[in-house]
Amino acid sequence: MSPQTRKIEPLGGEVAYDGGQFSVRAERFRHEDGETVEREYVHRVAAAAIVAYDDEHVWLVRQPREAILQYTLELPAGKLDVDGESALETAQRELAEEIAMRAEHWQEVQTYYSSSGYSDELVHVFAATGLAPCDDAEPEPGERIEIVRWPLADLDGAIAATNDAKTLMGLSWLRASL
Amino acid sequence: MSPQTRKIEPLGGEVAYDGGQFSVRAERFRHEDGETVEREYVHRVAAAAIVAYDDEHVWLVRQPREAILQYTLELPAGKLDVDGESALETAQRELAEEIAMRAEHWQEVQTYYSSSGYSDELVHVFAATGLAPCDDAEPEPGERIEIVRWPLADLDGAIAATNDAKTLMGLSWLRASL
Repeated sequence: MSPQTRKIEPLGGEVAYDGGQFSVRAERFRHEDGETVEREYVHRVAAAAIVAYDDEHVWLVRQPREAILQYTLELPAGKLDVDGESALETAQRELAEEIAMRAEHWQEVQTYYSSSGYSDELVHVFAATGLAPCDDAEPEPGERIEIVRWPLADLDGAIAATNDAKTLMGLSWLRASL
Repeated sequence: MSPQTRKIEPLGGEVAYDGGQFSVRAERFRHEDGETVEREYVHRVAAAAIVAYDDEHVWLVRQPREAILQYTLELPAGKLDVDGESALETAQRELAEEIAMRAEHWQEVQTYYSSSGYSDELVHVFAATGLAPCDDAEPEPGERIEIVRWPLADLDGAIAATNDAKTLMGLSWLRASL
């Protein structure tokens, strides 16, 4: 049996801590050799991020990230926290809410786990083109999000100006694909 | 004042949950306009990951990630959990412990926050060349790590075979730099 198909069987467990934006789960798992292990990890709902660009600019946001005491330059993004909504639908909603744009063309860029050693968070990165303004902007209260229209001619500058995983992933893809 | 230099002032808080591999912190912060906000986030010690390669191969590992019920293909990596150790020293230690190699040349590739909306985890990615075997391998009990020597000629295959953030970051850098 190839390593890729080795199974990890969940045996159940408990919510050790229930936060507003994530929870901590303590669960037991059985490996194929019969050994059982206990693991504690963070459950976080998946997210969708958008590389929205036209011939001249890529649309980014700058916002406070209190956990790291920094304002960071990021792709527009949001959580898949609406029941029944697909990752693409979340991306479309967030593009409208965060930067008041809709897009004609959507493409999957990358789906990745942010840090699966301790968290199950999955992030879907999409590219969006054929942009047009819409009036659906609904900034959440206190979000303090600033829209940043960054020139494609200085994409290297944007990559140098961020340390955010999804943003590095999306802008590196954009640099390679232009 | 430019947005980059806006300050977020920590006002203190408490450890809401103390896990073995991370903790949850509930803290208050003051923004420059005087507004205070409470945020709950995961504190996780930083990590170092290594893109170790020679003319023919890149050294990867495959290991179980119970939180996502998968065996994942990843860069060798580990936590900065030894007092006084730098990120580079952690990378050197992990390269020896996980794949029994040392490297003559080290280069910083990328430092990023995995998901700063809810976690302070910082990941340092290094490139390591001039590889030679060493006898310092000290697999942690139960780590179930398999060493995978992946041909550089099929780097695209490795990128397609992983969904791990640090690994996508490191292998994409390697593809662009070869």
